[in-house]
Amino acid sequence: MINVDRKLVEVCYTPGQYALYKGDFDIVVVIDVLRATSAMTTALHYGVEKIIPVATLEEAIDYKAKGFIVGAERDGQVVDGFDFGNSPYVYIDNDMRGKTVVLTTTNGTKAIDIAKNDATIVIGCLNNLQHLCDWLIKQHKNTLILASGWKDKVNLEDTICGGAIADILIESRKFRANEDSTVAAKFIYKSAKEHLWSFLRASSHRRRLIHLKIQKDVKYCLTSNTVPCIPILRNGALVKLEE
Amino acid sequence: MINVDRKLVEVCYTPGQYALYKGDFDIVVVIDVLRATSAMTTALHYGVEKIIPVATLEEAIDYKAKGFIVGAERDGQVVDGFDFGNSPYVYIDNDMRGKTVVLTTTNGTKAIDIAKNDATIVIGCLNNLQHLCDWLIKQHKNTLILASGWKDKVNLEDTICGGAIADILIESRKFRANEDSTVAAKFIYKSAKEHLWSFLRASSHRRRLIHLKIQKDVKYCLTSNTVPCIPILRNGALVKLEE
Repeated sequence: MINVDRKLVEVCYTPGQYALYKGDFDIVVVIDVLRATSAMTTALHYGVEKIIPVATLEEAIDYKAKGFIVGAERDGQVVDGFDFGNSPYVYIDNDMRGKTVVLTTTNGTKAIDIAKNDATIVIGCLNNLQHLCDWLIKQHKNTLILASGWKDKVNLEDTICGGAIADILIESRKFRANEDSTVAAKFIYKSAKEHLWSFLRASSHRRRLIHLKIQKDVKYCLTSNTVPCIPILRNGALVKLEE
Repeated sequence: MINVDRKLVEVCYTPGQYALYKGDFDIVVVIDVLRATSAMTTALHYGVEKIIPVATLEEAIDYKAKGFIVGAERDGQVVDGFDFGNSPYVYIDNDMRGKTVVLTTTNGTKAIDIAKNDATIVIGCLNNLQHLCDWLIKQHKNTLILASGWKDKVNLEDTICGGAIADILIESRKFRANEDSTVAAKFIYKSAKEHLWSFLRASSHRRRLIHLKIQKDVKYCLTSNTVPCIPILRNGALVKLEE
C-alpha cells in the first residue's frame, strides 16, 4: 500500500475558520450533531423530499409567507411564529413524506451557506456515520469536514463526529491528514467513543440542551448508525443521495 | 468546597478566535510552545533583562537600525539579516545577561499583540508549567489561555499545553471551565501526557520543525517544569515576574 494516492481528509472546527481551509477540497461534509444535521438526515430518510437550508430568519420568513413548511431554530429553541425547530422527532412523529421543508438553524445552515459554492456538500452526523464514510471512501476525493460549532466557537460533539469520520477514512488507508485540527479531533474521538454520553456531560452544548429539556433528542442524535441516508445539496436544496 | 467562588479558565486555540473570548478575563496566558514562549521564558530565566515583542518585521527592522539585539523568526527559520530566531538555546549558549532583546515570531508575538490592552499578559509554555499554574492559582482571577496556533489554525502542542494549564487549575477546585474548547484541550492533554514526544510525531508542526533540523530545540520545548520563571508584560516589554 506504499505510494497509494491518499486523498486529504481534514476537520475544520468552525465556520469562522473555513476560509483557512477552503480551496483544496472536492467534498465538504457539514456537521451539526446537536441537532441540525441529525434532523436533516432523519427528515430525508423518513420521506421528506427536499430541505431548503437558509442562513437567515429573514429568508425563512419569506418562504413561510409563500406557503412553505418552515422550521426555524435559534439558541436551541423554536423561533416564535414557526412550526418547529430542529428536533429530529418532528420528522418521525409527523408524516411529511413528499414535502419540501425550509429550515434555518443557529449554526448548521450557516455552515452549508458558506461552503455551498466551493464543493459538493453532503450532510454528516453520528446517525449516518458509517454509511456516509463508506460513500466517502468510494468517492476517494479530498474531503473537508466542516463542523458547525456553536456561534463560531468549537463544540465537543461536532469535533468528536468529525474525528470519527476522519478516523474511519484514514483507517481505510485511502486518506491522510495534514492538519493538527484533524489529528486532535481524532484523539478526542478515540478518548470519547466508548462512553459518548457521559463524555458529553462535559459539553457546554449538551448542558444548554438539558436546560431546554430535550434529552430525548440528544440521546437520538448521539446514537451512531441508525439512519442510512446521506443528504446532498443539489440546486440549493438537500435531497437524499440515491446510490 | 461547594459554592466556592470558582474563577473561569478557558482555552482559545488561535489568535483569530480571540475576539470571541475576550472581555471576561483579567489574565491572558500566551502560549507558543514551539518555540517563541519557551524561548522567552528561557531568556528571562537566564538573565535577559527584557524582551520587547513586536508583531511585524518592519518594527523589528526599525529596532535593529537603532542598535538593539533583534531576533526574527518566520516559518520556523531565522529571517535574513537578523542575529537569531526563536531557539531557546540562543539564550543559554550566549551570555545575554542584562540585555534588552527585541523579538518577532510567526505566531507568538502576534498573540501577545492582540491581547495586550485587555488584560495582564503572562507567558506560558511546558518549561514553566507548574510554576506558572501555582502563580495563577494564587492570583485566582479569570484566566484565558491564548494559544498562538500556526497561522490561525489549531496546533497540537499549544492545545496540549493549554489543556495542561486548564487541568491543573480546575483540579485546584478554584477554577471552572464553560467552553467546549477548554474541555477538549483537557482531554487531548490527558491522552497525550504520558507520551508527549511520540504523540507529537502526529503533529504537523513538529514535522515542519524536524524538516528544519531543530530536534534539540523541540525536545527542550516539550520538557515540562525545567524553567521556574514567568515572563510578564509591563510597559510593552516582557520582564521576569519577581515573586
